[in-house]
Amino acid sequence: MTSVRPAPAPAAAAETLTARYDAVRLATEQLCTPLVTEDYVVSSMPDVSPTKWHLAHTSWFFETFILSPHLDTYRTPNPRYAFLFNSYYVQAGERHCRAQRGLITRPTVQEVYAYRAHVDTHMRELLARIDGDPDHPATALAELGLHHEQQHQELLVTDIKHVLWTNPMRPAYRHDLHVAAAATPQGWTTLEGGVQWVGYDGHDFHFDNEKPAHRTFVQPTAIANRLITNAEYAAFIADGGYRRPELWLSRGWGMVQESRWTAPLYWERIAGEWQEFTLGGLAPIGEHAPVTHVSYFEADAYARWAGMRLPTEFEWELLARSSCHDRPLSGRFVEAAHFHPGSDASPGVQQLFGDAWQWTQSAYTAYPGYRAASDALGEYNGKWMSDQWVLRGASCATPTSHARLTYRNFFPSDARWQFTAIRLAQDVE
Amino acid sequence: MTSVRPAPAPAAAAETLTARYDAVRLATEQLCTPLVTEDYVVSSMPDVSPTKWHLAHTSWFFETFILSPHLDTYRTPNPRYAFLFNSYYVQAGERHCRAQRGLITRPTVQEVYAYRAHVDTHMRELLARIDGDPDHPATALAELGLHHEQQHQELLVTDIKHVLWTNPMRPAYRHDLHVAAAATPQGWTTLEGGVQWVGYDGHDFHFDNEKPAHRTFVQPTAIANRLITNAEYAAFIADGGYRRPELWLSRGWGMVQESRWTAPLYWERIAGEWQEFTLGGLAPIGEHAPVTHVSYFEADAYARWAGMRLPTEFEWELLARSSCHDRPLSGRFVEAAHFHPGSDASPGVQQLFGDAWQWTQSAYTAYPGYRAASDALGEYNGKWMSDQWVLRGASCATPTSHARLTYRNFFPSDARWQFTAIRLAQDVE
Amino acid sequence: MTSVRPAPAPAAAAETLTARYDAVRLATEQLCTPLVTEDYVVSSMPDVSPTKWHLAHTSWFFETFILSPHLDTYRTPNPRYAFLFNSYYVQAGERHCRAQRGLITRPTVQEVYAYRAHVDTHMRELLARIDGDPDHPATALAELGLHHEQQHQELLVTDIKHVLWTNPMRPAYRHDLHVAAAATPQGWTTLEGGVQWVGYDGHDFHFDNEKPAHRTFVQPTAIANRLITNAEYAAFIADGGYRRPELWLSRGWGMVQESRWTAPLYWERIAGEWQEFTLGGLAPIGEHAPVTHVSYFEADAYARWAGMRLPTEFEWELLARSSCHDRPLSGRFVEAAHFHPGSDASPGVQQLFGDAWQWTQSAYTAYPGYRAASDALGEYNGKWMSDQWVLRGASCATPTSHARLTYRNFFPSDARWQFTAIRLAQDVE
Amino acid sequence: MTSVRPAPAPAAAAETLTARYDAVRLATEQLCTPLVTEDYVVSSMPDVSPTKWHLAHTSWFFETFILSPHLDTYRTPNPRYAFLFNSYYVQAGERHCRAQRGLITRPTVQEVYAYRAHVDTHMRELLARIDGDPDHPATALAELGLHHEQQHQELLVTDIKHVLWTNPMRPAYRHDLHVAAAATPQGWTTLEGGVQWVGYDGHDFHFDNEKPAHRTFVQPTAIANRLITNAEYAAFIADGGYRRPELWLSRGWGMVQESRWTAPLYWERIAGEWQEFTLGGLAPIGEHAPVTHVSYFEADAYARWAGMRLPTEFEWELLARSSCHDRPLSGRFVEAAHFHPGSDASPGVQQLFGDAWQWTQSAYTAYPGYRAASDALGEYNGKWMSDQWVLRGASCATPTSHARLTYRNFFPSDARWQFTAIRLAQDVE
Repeated sequence: MTSVRPAPAPAAAAETLTARYDAVRLATEQLCTPLVTEDYVVSSMPDVSPTKWHLAHTSWFFETFILSPHLDTYRTPNPRYAFLFNSYYVQAGERHCRAQRGLITRPTVQEVYAYRAHVDTHMRELLARIDGDPDHPATALAELGLHHEQQHQELLVTDIKHVLWTNPMRPAYRHDLHVAAAATPQGWTTLEGGVQWVGYDGHDFHFDNEKPAHRTFVQPTAIANRLITNAEYAAFIADGGYRRPELWLSRGWGMVQESRWTAPLYWERIAGEWQEFTLGGLAPIGEHAPVTHVSYFEADAYARWAGMRLPTEFEWELLARSSCHDRPLSGRFVEAAHFHPGSDASPGVQQLFGDAWQWTQSAYTAYPGYRAASDALGEYNGKWMSDQWVLRGASCATPTSHARLTYRNFFPSDARWQFTAIRLAQDVE
Repeated sequence: MTSVRPAPAPAAAAETLTARYDAVRLATEQLCTPLVTEDYVVSSMPDVSPTKWHLAHTSWFFETFILSPHLDTYRTPNPRYAFLFNSYYVQAGERHCRAQRGLITRPTVQEVYAYRAHVDTHMRELLARIDGDPDHPATALAELGLHHEQQHQELLVTDIKHVLWTNPMRPAYRHDLHVAAAATPQGWTTLEGGVQWVGYDGHDFHFDNEKPAHRTFVQPTAIANRLITNAEYAAFIADGGYRRPELWLSRGWGMVQESRWTAPLYWERIAGEWQEFTLGGLAPIGEHAPVTHVSYFEADAYARWAGMRLPTEFEWELLARSSCHDRPLSGRFVEAAHFHPGSDASPGVQQLFGDAWQWTQSAYTAYPGYRAASDALGEYNGKWMSDQWVLRGASCATPTSHARLTYRNFFPSDARWQFTAIRLAQDVE
Repeated sequence: MTSVRPAPAPAAAAETLTARYDAVRLATEQLCTPLVTEDYVVSSMPDVSPTKWHLAHTSWFFETFILSPHLDTYRTPNPRYAFLFNSYYVQAGERHCRAQRGLITRPTVQEVYAYRAHVDTHMRELLARIDGDPDHPATALAELGLHHEQQHQELLVTDIKHVLWTNPMRPAYRHDLHVAAAATPQGWTTLEGGVQWVGYDGHDFHFDNEKPAHRTFVQPTAIANRLITNAEYAAFIADGGYRRPELWLSRGWGMVQESRWTAPLYWERIAGEWQEFTLGGLAPIGEHAPVTHVSYFEADAYARWAGMRLPTEFEWELLARSSCHDRPLSGRFVEAAHFHPGSDASPGVQQLFGDAWQWTQSAYTAYPGYRAASDALGEYNGKWMSDQWVLRGASCATPTSHARLTYRNFFPSDARWQFTAIRLAQDVE
Repeated sequence: MTSVRPAPAPAAAAETLTARYDAVRLATEQLCTPLVTEDYVVSSMPDVSPTKWHLAHTSWFFETFILSPHLDTYRTPNPRYAFLFNSYYVQAGERHCRAQRGLITRPTVQEVYAYRAHVDTHMRELLARIDGDPDHPATALAELGLHHEQQHQELLVTDIKHVLWTNPMRPAYRHDLHVAAAATPQGWTTLEGGVQWVGYDGHDFHFDNEKPAHRTFVQPTAIANRLITNAEYAAFIADGGYRRPELWLSRGWGMVQESRWTAPLYWERIAGEWQEFTLGGLAPIGEHAPVTHVSYFEADAYARWAGMRLPTEFEWELLARSSCHDRPLSGRFVEAAHFHPGSDASPGVQQLFGDAWQWTQSAYTAYPGYRAASDALGEYNGKWMSDQWVLRGASCATPTSHARLTYRNFFPSDARWQFTAIRLAQDVE
């Protein structure tokens, strides 16, 4: 299958920060290669930011938190950018209203690329000065900035997918994507119950919400070796899944009725067949590919229909630990870099990383002993800790070097525009 | 202090089911004594049901789940009532739109009381037949029906409080309520960490969501002996609590701005002083009384301002277990039956039950091994397990015999019309 | 047919102002006889005010504009009433939010009746002092107050109809209403074109918006002798009237789609037959009765479907003048006092007054030379002169002595809860 | 002053239809010269269409109503365009949702220009065949298509002004615009009352809503010789105009409060001075320039504050007739082609055409005897005849050859994004 992501960034230890900076920034721009200027501008729904905004916002992050405080010769090309391209950092100043992001035609795409180049020039100058000094405050901030940019790489892809889908002409993002998923029977891995350590306990990059590593008590559980497929999900639909309130959480059933959900986000019934809008355009659903673009409500309803449940985030983490205990955590889980999930058909536990994010039944709250950072970056994770669920793994849009065994992604119960999927679990007596 | 609740229902073991049925049904009607006919009709906001509806819906519950299936001579006085007074039981048939509950003038209040009497007559007939037979299916259902009615007793009080407050004339519910709270300094109880058993493990009445009892791993924690007072909360306000985004969860700050929150729900600033609308009308806030009618967002912001956090539901449960290990669980914690919290000033751990529900930082999800009932009653708890928080304890509006150490109440992050309060916790190194 | 309205108030000239005051105030209360207390409280949609509010607001009008300024011994029973019962008189002080009218349970119905009695006592005292003095400022204001009360009598009836209909049990207002409409063929009266005088030119009571009398140029027009019947309107529906956008104004078609209109407001399709909710409950539509509860959009679409148009307000007025030129204007047009339109089957021009208001194609704007009063009463008519249409005639809910040949009623294009009907016109070559 | 519009299209009689077609189509594209690609894409509010859409929709109009029925060799470049670029012609098939116009990135701007060129090629082919034949149905349709395109030229300019203003960077459309308005004292022209002929009575192009010419009765009126200036309007603001409910229509006052209006649409208070966003960017308001971007509500409130009123559409038409009775109607009234109103300071009646549209107190309804066309083009004017006001004249964005003495423009009471202005009138005793 064709790899559409740029070559993975080399492991942190083996390269300079400058080299990684260049690789990550370049990767963002490569994602935009298939776009025309018009595609960069619009926001097709409140969750979606314009591509142009992603390009500028990630640069603003470096400007605001690194260049301005740590490179005294730095001058912004335009002081209004700080207003336009702040996302939600209340402590970093006033922000342009999110709802209006898609209405701003200037700066142009070309000017935004120039802004990126301006920031890059100065970042390289700063990194040249400090590289090799792990204690310089800008070092950790640059590391964070790169991971922040990688998060926006994923959002850029999922957002542009939504933008293109909104167009009744259903244009494709790329035409060279394909899937070759093979059928594998469902298997189960059993986790023994008892006290287990979870959370991040290393010294590489991680987010504050993965810490501290701590003990938790886990019940004996069987957890599925692969994700639910499109064909399995189609059977749920055919069995009246979207018409039976007893399968749904109350708010989920409300969404089904209010938003008239009858299938995952990008599915369309055409001439009696399910088709799916993909980054390659409309195509028949791949039977063996994992179902994606389902909300928590749908994942939960599917599990109830199947007589099972979703795993907790710790059950998921223990499964992932058990299946790769002899392997380094980063750079290996995401083996197939692609934008259409479904290719990983190796035996054993599959599709942990690189296909789709996996809903857990764990609400997104603080780990015991969690401490948010006290500066503006403290807004990064902690302030979202209500009304969301933890998703684990990594999707086909996640940059390889961004995936991590203890990574906690989070979205609200009704979010569907990300590559989100279903892994089942069941109690063991 | 004047007790406004009817005499507590005697302990289950010591009395007949019929006697308890009569006591609970009577208690509901006694709560309505202070009302005029007009008060029964309206719904002042979407969460609030009309008093008339509470009276009818609790009767419908007995009719639908007990009388219709188990008393073959039973006839409903009006077949349309099943449509009007079903709340959310999808499997029990079509329902009247919740948003329209407050627009229905007929059946009249008098007719609703007649409906209650009709149901009571037949319930007594049925209970007379089956009483003493714990295995008759109606026995457990009647027990559930009584606890259901007790839940609506609490809602009836909090709803009518909101209705009266909505009136610019701010009429009182009763004039014979008063508070005599004394100051007590804040104290702390330390919980040792480790594996602990939590959840319900007995044979008396309980809800399915309290089960199964299971082990959990708890961190060492210090938990406050009393609730935060109005005076303490006023200090948070005075310190800019509602103007500092860094203290708030992101959605919470959104609520502050959108709904222009500047204080707890019923507080008003009058001539430079804080007053509070109570069931006795407008009154100056009681300095030593616990602050109530705060949302999760406010409880969380207060805790952050104080440099602490909210307890988890299991920390709360272990605190409650530790402070009453030598006492039976039911009927003792709620010592002061009253509608205005603040009276419990005994030394040691205070205000666990009978003052206000206490927000925890535990999202409302299923316990490991949770199984919902498979009939319509299975909708009772399980379908609400998203986007809500667990509250523990019991409020001044909770019937005494309804409180329970393992009871899991739940409300969304922004709910404020219940008697909800703040108990702090902090990590122990 | 049973007359449900109280005996018509005697002609102004022939009785004292006090006698008329008593008659009008009594008539309002008689309209409430069929109601239970609960019916008085609710507002079933934004246009609908609670019965209790109508009773109080009309009293507040006398209190505010007459008693307070002109009877120095007058004291309000409750100063808060001025806030609660002001409708839209900005210059008369702050007002309670209209959207909350239906949420206010106190003052009770009984207290509102006491308020009415209090106002009545003092009004009689004042009228006794000034009666006979046409130049005392309170005389004209009392006259206005009585007409204001008569307007609210009509609203009270149409509002309570909507309240009762909102109840899925569809309770009747009264059971002694019936209709005996006979079929009459459609006839046409031709108006000659040319300059004509229109508007009020007398010395009795009238509203400012009927003045000044002025000349207008009218085209030759044929105008229908009766209103469109339910049977005729049903033919429009059967011919796809609600599915053919070419028949509708653009905003009207938007309403059809957004609000899913498929028939007049109170029509229901039951077992293949059209039924209509009336003040007597659900009943099959009367074939020969005029269709009512249609919006301007529906009236206009019907006319287009019929290849005709609605009359202008001046065409309507000239028709009415021509058909009763030898009769006094008041007290004669409304011959059948009833609440279900359809009884007037006399030959010649029919159904001008007393069946239903009749949409005209005249927008509600000022007559040339119009001057609004400069005090609070100046808000009575002038400030509504945008985005509404003139309706002429009088409905079955209009008090007899309130109808007038030059009367200009007005409602927005989508209003349907009034008794509104269709009279056609067509150009004459 | 610099003229920014392309050279006016020569008078119809003196040139071929093909020549005029080319001139009008070119003029549209010249208006886009100052834009960058990004500007073409967005819709900044529901009334605003993207520039790209205007370019495509006007081409679709020729394609749908002329090329498809009358040129059998014509093939659309893309059948989906008919769906994307239909505006509101229900009879011309399904339409893309207006609310989503600004979310469609493809076809690109370049593809839209190619679409225009494709349509132009075939239109020229068709016109070459039929030119000179006034009876060929395509001739009148082409004429209509050109006037339709001219209407969109004006919308294109007002829409892009709104798009640019939405950007907090407030970019200018062009930098070569300036205003040189001189002060002229207010003067008045008196119209004698009586029966007058109004409406279109010629043989050149006109819209159906200007017909038939008919007689109307006009009262004696004095009508202002010029528009209200910015300085005069600023005095209204300074006198509390936006804070005094007695000056406003009821719905207008609702808008003031709900939308927090404190000045015309594009005004901003900066450092104590009023500035105005113009097509040339932010600039201090021109004291002598006419106030523009006011709603009907504001125009009406201003007039009431001034103790006067707005003219009726016929008073306006008679003023215009009286001031140019010896001149041909077209091509002379619009003397100064510019985008910022305010330059016409000649003596006598000024600013009738070419500065700003002028609100009248006439609701937009059908003239007596009005007949809408029976095909899809019948939707052009008639279906908008509710809830709008007639505006007369022409604005600085109106193409010169599009202005006409009997032209009836129409907008709702709250519309502000057009160049709309105030001319006063007063009754003459």
